[in-house]
Amino acid sequence: MTASPRLRTVAVLGLGQMGRPMAVNLVGAGFAVRTWNRSGGAVEGAAACATIAEAVAGADAALTMLSEDAAVEAVTFGDGRLLAGLGRGTLHVGMSTISVALAGRLAEAHRDAGQGFVAAPVFGRPEAAAARQLWIVPGGDAADVAALASVFAALGQGTFPMPGAREAALAKLCGNFLIAANVEILAEALALGEKGGIPPAALLGMLTGTLFGSPVVKRYGAMIAAGQFTPPGFAMALGLKDMRLVLEAGEQSRTPLPVAELLRSRFLTALATGREGLDWAGIAGLVREQAGL
Amino acid sequence: MTASPRLRTVAVLGLGQMGRPMAVNLVGAGFAVRTWNRSGGAVEGAAACATIAEAVAGADAALTMLSEDAAVEAVTFGDGRLLAGLGRGTLHVGMSTISVALAGRLAEAHRDAGQGFVAAPVFGRPEAAAARQLWIVPGGDAADVAALASVFAALGQGTFPMPGAREAALAKLCGNFLIAANVEILAEALALGEKGGIPPAALLGMLTGTLFGSPVVKRYGAMIAAGQFTPPGFAMALGLKDMRLVLEAGEQSRTPLPVAELLRSRFLTALATGREGLDWAGIAGLVREQAGL
Amino acid sequence: MTASPRLRTVAVLGLGQMGRPMAVNLVGAGFAVRTWNRSGGAVEGAAACATIAEAVAGADAALTMLSEDAAVEAVTFGDGRLLAGLGRGTLHVGMSTISVALAGRLAEAHRDAGQGFVAAPVFGRPEAAAARQLWIVPGGDAADVAALASVFAALGQGTFPMPGAREAALAKLCGNFLIAANVEILAEALALGEKGGIPPAALLGMLTGTLFGSPVVKRYGAMIAAGQFTPPGFAMALGLKDMRLVLEAGEQSRTPLPVAELLRSRFLTALATGREGLDWAGIAGLVREQAGL
Amino acid sequence: MTASPRLRTVAVLGLGQMGRPMAVNLVGAGFAVRTWNRSGGAVEGAAACATIAEAVAGADAALTMLSEDAAVEAVTFGDGRLLAGLGRGTLHVGMSTISVALAGRLAEAHRDAGQGFVAAPVFGRPEAAAARQLWIVPGGDAADVAALASVFAALGQGTFPMPGAREAALAKLCGNFLIAANVEILAEALALGEKGGIPPAALLGMLTGTLFGSPVVKRYGAMIAAGQFTPPGFAMALGLKDMRLVLEAGEQSRTPLPVAELLRSRFLTALATGREGLDWAGIAGLVREQAGL
Repeated sequence: MTASPRLRTVAVLGLGQMGRPMAVNLVGAGFAVRTWNRSGGAVEGAAACATIAEAVAGADAALTMLSEDAAVEAVTFGDGRLLAGLGRGTLHVGMSTISVALAGRLAEAHRDAGQGFVAAPVFGRPEAAAARQLWIVPGGDAADVAALASVFAALGQGTFPMPGAREAALAKLCGNFLIAANVEILAEALALGEKGGIPPAALLGMLTGTLFGSPVVKRYGAMIAAGQFTPPGFAMALGLKDMRLVLEAGEQSRTPLPVAELLRSRFLTALATGREGLDWAGIAGLVREQAGL
Repeated sequence: MTASPRLRTVAVLGLGQMGRPMAVNLVGAGFAVRTWNRSGGAVEGAAACATIAEAVAGADAALTMLSEDAAVEAVTFGDGRLLAGLGRGTLHVGMSTISVALAGRLAEAHRDAGQGFVAAPVFGRPEAAAARQLWIVPGGDAADVAALASVFAALGQGTFPMPGAREAALAKLCGNFLIAANVEILAEALALGEKGGIPPAALLGMLTGTLFGSPVVKRYGAMIAAGQFTPPGFAMALGLKDMRLVLEAGEQSRTPLPVAELLRSRFLTALATGREGLDWAGIAGLVREQAGL
Repeated sequence: MTASPRLRTVAVLGLGQMGRPMAVNLVGAGFAVRTWNRSGGAVEGAAACATIAEAVAGADAALTMLSEDAAVEAVTFGDGRLLAGLGRGTLHVGMSTISVALAGRLAEAHRDAGQGFVAAPVFGRPEAAAARQLWIVPGGDAADVAALASVFAALGQGTFPMPGAREAALAKLCGNFLIAANVEILAEALALGEKGGIPPAALLGMLTGTLFGSPVVKRYGAMIAAGQFTPPGFAMALGLKDMRLVLEAGEQSRTPLPVAELLRSRFLTALATGREGLDWAGIAGLVREQAGL
Repeated sequence: MTASPRLRTVAVLGLGQMGRPMAVNLVGAGFAVRTWNRSGGAVEGAAACATIAEAVAGADAALTMLSEDAAVEAVTFGDGRLLAGLGRGTLHVGMSTISVALAGRLAEAHRDAGQGFVAAPVFGRPEAAAARQLWIVPGGDAADVAALASVFAALGQGTFPMPGAREAALAKLCGNFLIAANVEILAEALALGEKGGIPPAALLGMLTGTLFGSPVVKRYGAMIAAGQFTPPGFAMALGLKDMRLVLEAGEQSRTPLPVAELLRSRFLTALATGREGLDWAGIAGLVREQAGL
């Protein structure tokens, strides 16, 4: 795989569980990669930069892969940061899960600076990132999205374009809501079954073997049936954060979301009762506990 | 496909949307089929009987495929009914979705009569029944379940055995709960997306293309995205009935089920606001209505 | 206070925490009282009867004060029971909290037997019964209710007549729903306050001193603020039973009741987690537990 | 009533439905009152000021009575605003319903400026403000609260002091949550009763006559029973705002609040379905609508 002629140099800001394997894959695909990470660290074959300004200087595109709105804002706005350092005609590719409002602000700010912003959040855990198996949901100017084809090809197995940056951010939030919702409803079903004498694995096997066999049901169902919520692939506190973003989007657009509200309470309860170290699927443990299991 | 030597004559009680194609397939598989239906009707190649007693006389197994507990009870108990008419050593195969309590009562009553009861509820709509594509969830005495292998092979594409009749009834209720729950969470996600500018079909395509692509999400998601809830494949009132059975099972075993309770309210609201003629997936319309869509 | 000329002899069936003080007060008001209790026991000044038939023979009215539908049915229907033993032109006064459906059945059965049925459930705990401070909610034929004026005067501090027996039963269920609902919302408010640094007693004092000072808020608020849920004045299992009756009434009339559903889950959780010995206000402890208090 | 020697001159910022009658009462109690209002207007006997700076210059205390956090922030922070214009040793008395977080920020900012901040939110609608019947919930430095005794006496019928400004803001939010929660549970009970044949006024009369007779139940119950939600005494959008503040406080302190979440959905639905012109008690109409009433 070769980088497109127009897009050769890519900055990667954020080398966490997700950003690091993505940077590795970009190097492998032949891009000139320049990395920056708040707490340091390097990727073989990439230039490790001490500052954001250094990383983005001369880059055709800068990818951000950070944990939340505040981190993306801190990296983007201000002296010596991404927005100030990126050249005209280049792209900021925001791959974090962020609020719809921030996606809108970023699109506007980069437009004002003569740059492009493409929100491109991803589905997939760290192992999917390493295996180039991410699903990418890009949203932005159509030409900008097209220009990123080689980058996306180096990172994932497919893209699902949305009308714009705000819509891409929202689509990702819808997906995260549905993951958490699947955890809740599977936990209820498996608890009901178990209290009625059906081993969880048997019930889950029937469910995935008949009508319910999606990747999310298989992966999270297995965790719930086994009661195995460590190590955390996605932290409990991030679950609360994402439900907040979902509900904020709903409040903004006047969309009542009762299951999202139930999930918000689940995550709050989990954090209030000592489960902050578990994977977010650990809210299933609350369902069991309330059933006396 | 040939019927097993031990199980040649099968009575089918109930020729509704599901029972009729099942009887047809049993005839096609070489069974001697005797049918009875409350409101009459016949199946080519099967003996149409005027009474339950006539239908079950001499049968090796009697299948019931009826709409609810009350119908199954009316067909089973009393003079001239199934329990009185079936011979010793034969089987009642209850394929309706019934309460856990009734499954337990039937198992006991048939045992006391020297007969066997196998609960064998199915997943699949009428077209799946016609195409021998049902999924069957049998529960009962292991030898009885084994004896029915040829019957199940004539009706469906696979079986997922449960420990007993009560557990099979419960597993089916868990599945129906999860179907309705998927309708709710998809409806919330698609409404949130639509109010934020994402066409429902685009969002659904992304969801099924990434992590959420199960049969239930594809089929019901398409109905929700299109807002198409007629003709009803599964009636709204049956949705309320099933949620009641789920919650009764949960009350019996002390299992709180908040999403099942939300769904119960959805079905009540649907029936109170003129949606009794819609498919049960029509509760998605309530999510939209409350969002002002 | 003197009994009306037409109504002199009163049978009291059920001498539990409520029935006993009520029988005592009827004796004190000059009625000829005949008692029966499943597990025996006597009231000074009243005739203790060994059978229901003996108790109701010659009575102008028979009061039932029992724990639930099943007990009222067992006492009323069958050979040698209330319905068979009461004379024509006499009254059954059902003072238990029962289902709307049973109230309707009783009204019909007694009408068919040439008797009258008045549902007259009460608000008030045992100490209110002893102090003649009950509130009575009678429903039945207007003349029958009028004929009971002297009985009600001997038992309580006031009556709130409803259109009929079913409506009286329903009004009582509405009241019990509101008691439990007040426990829930007060528990949420006090937990939120306490986690934010407001002592529960201080917040409760403000609430009752301003807009929220009803008897139910004062009594249950004090229990919640003190975390004192023993001894149980009203048992946890009865809370679940009443929420079931409320939700059944709602299902019958197609009325979604989301807070009643939440309460049902609360009572289920309480019973599944070892709180069956607490007063029903003990569901407040779940609110606290989920907040990490 | 005479103003205390130490506290003679009071600025009133905000002359809306609440601020205006409060200013009138302060004039009547003998205070030197200086008013400012964003959209102009004057109160007889008070000095109408064109700017905030002019209003607070020389004041011993400045009262703010504004609709929401953003308004209070806009009036307080910045050049020529309250914080800059108030003298050292004077007081800002924040009587609006604001977030716990803002109460904390205000306390800090005024402390840093050598001033005092007392949060003193009130219970009572405009007519209560006019009649000096407000209930006041002050929180701040004890000496500051004491110094305001004459001001509070001129405005209301009693005070319920809280430990600090944040706690006072939170106590008020708890109260507003409980008002909305009472609307919800009364609406559910009255709808259930009405569908079962009990006229709402009859059921409400029974409820308030027995255990549930608080000011909030009487006032809001009457509105619900009559279905009368105009003119709005408290706007629907403010209901959503307050539930958001309640839930934010709960998220901050890790307190799950399921009824508050239900209410948030109710207010969202109301605003999404054309009820923005109704009193916030108009969420009762949603309960009725979903029951088919």
